[in-house]
Amino acid sequence: MTIRSVAIIGLGLLGGSIGLAVKARGLAVTTTGWDRDAEVRARAAARGLADTIAETPEAAVAGADLVILCVPVGAMADAARAIAPGLAPETIISDVGSSKAAVAEALAEALPGATIIPAHPVAGTEQSGPDAGFATLFAGRWCIITPPEGVDPASLEALSDFWAALGSKVETMDAAHHDLVLAVTSHIPHLIAYTIVGTASDLEDVTQSEVIKYSAGGFRDFTRIAASDPVMWRDVFLTNRGAVLEMLGRFTEDLTALQRAIRSGDGDTLFDLFTRTRAIRRAVIEQGQDDERPDFGRDH
Amino acid sequence: MTIRSVAIIGLGLLGGSIGLAVKARGLAVTTTGWDRDAEVRARAAARGLADTIAETPEAAVAGADLVILCVPVGAMADAARAIAPGLAPETIISDVGSSKAAVAEALAEALPGATIIPAHPVAGTEQSGPDAGFATLFAGRWCIITPPEGVDPASLEALSDFWAALGSKVETMDAAHHDLVLAVTSHIPHLIAYTIVGTASDLEDVTQSEVIKYSAGGFRDFTRIAASDPVMWRDVFLTNRGAVLEMLGRFTEDLTALQRAIRSGDGDTLFDLFTRTRAIRRAVIEQGQDDERPDFGRDH
Repeated sequence: MTIRSVAIIGLGLLGGSIGLAVKARGLAVTTTGWDRDAEVRARAAARGLADTIAETPEAAVAGADLVILCVPVGAMADAARAIAPGLAPETIISDVGSSKAAVAEALAEALPGATIIPAHPVAGTEQSGPDAGFATLFAGRWCIITPPEGVDPASLEALSDFWAALGSKVETMDAAHHDLVLAVTSHIPHLIAYTIVGTASDLEDVTQSEVIKYSAGGFRDFTRIAASDPVMWRDVFLTNRGAVLEMLGRFTEDLTALQRAIRSGDGDTLFDLFTRTRAIRRAVIEQGQDDERPDFGRDH
Repeated sequence: MTIRSVAIIGLGLLGGSIGLAVKARGLAVTTTGWDRDAEVRARAAARGLADTIAETPEAAVAGADLVILCVPVGAMADAARAIAPGLAPETIISDVGSSKAAVAEALAEALPGATIIPAHPVAGTEQSGPDAGFATLFAGRWCIITPPEGVDPASLEALSDFWAALGSKVETMDAAHHDLVLAVTSHIPHLIAYTIVGTASDLEDVTQSEVIKYSAGGFRDFTRIAASDPVMWRDVFLTNRGAVLEMLGRFTEDLTALQRAIRSGDGDTLFDLFTRTRAIRRAVIEQGQDDERPDFGRDH
């Protein structure tokens, strides 16, 4: 089984990048896109994010081998209900959501009997909307597929092959484990970035203008992450609540221990941690997951 | 009064970048460098980080109009005592440390009667050592000078002019306010980056290999910051303890409020914050303090 036609529902950063990657890599796959926002559809047509931009969700999915829902995780159920009337029984339903157990449940409820295989390409930028996508977003990045129990092996293989053809490295794991891993590698980093940017902008004894002027000391990196799509991230935290709260608890314990070390002048504890964390950076670079140039190769 | 000769004590990222910037901009300033580590001196000579690499601290500062101490803030007092025998009475003593009240006190104690004007160029990368410096590090970045009460105006102006000649924008403020501003724009961001990278590497239910593989979801940005020099950062937290603990308290309060919002499913609170923080990012970019390209213009 090979994917020959893909329907992309939601034409923001992720959906647009899928369409552009299919085209740029010259895959023998036709793409049809739809977005509930007419302005986004018009912009998607102008940029050529898909071969065809459909006017209705049913039309978008008609005859598709694979439908990928590229909407905020809180909107998955509505999107699934919108496409239901146009779906053929053999169509594979997948998505790109950042939390997986909740999405699997929502899709199974909205599309009973359908072949549902959730997935999560671990790739993105702080930009969103139909102008944000680009063809190389997935190159060298991991795509995690979370197949439900009893999944059809041929469908799973077809979905894996599709993501590999976009340049991704593909891994499978169960949804609960995905949600725990991503809580620590993505959701908590976003939560603390949003928090510190909020804290900094609310101070009375330090002005917002000072915070912005002197942001090159580290803060500006957090502002990038805290510029990510608010709807997407609200939904991530609401749908991956358990794992996020669990990991947040561990982070807070560790932060409290450092706070105590600072208060008591325990330099050894600080030095030991600060030395240990460098090894993680080296591994991230060695495994091709980040740019080794200082400061990510920002212009200087 | 114009600076014609600068002694750079400590030839790591900051010290090396000062020497390279003087050369690249063709300033009529001679530079002499010294580092307590003989291997660093040899590497500095090979890279041409200063016109002359001196063999002793006294020789480095002899005849200098300006001495800049570019060592970790906990090593400032020792460095000051090391140069003391070679100092002329009219030499201006400055530094590049990230905390200022503690440095001002340490220098005043080590060099009674000297003209001491602490400064902090808000610029850097996660790299350190004599190979890390580059000529454009300070271009367009702010340098905060924290003149003590009763400072000689001509000396202050000479130091300001020197930093401006390296491409910096110069601001003055009192040391205590500097320490509060930098606690929020630099020290707390580093502390929470170190913490989350430590938390992630200590988990039992998520492997370190998974943390690294899926770091592109946000975590990798924190690993960059948490790869910064351990000695420098240990000293920052120990010497800016009061402001760091104060700002950490506010951050923790805000994080606790978000935790409660997640637990109770209060999406509006999350959405409101996540929307508000985008404006800060826009201002950081508009004011030239970061790269506007998505993902800082990392290669994709």
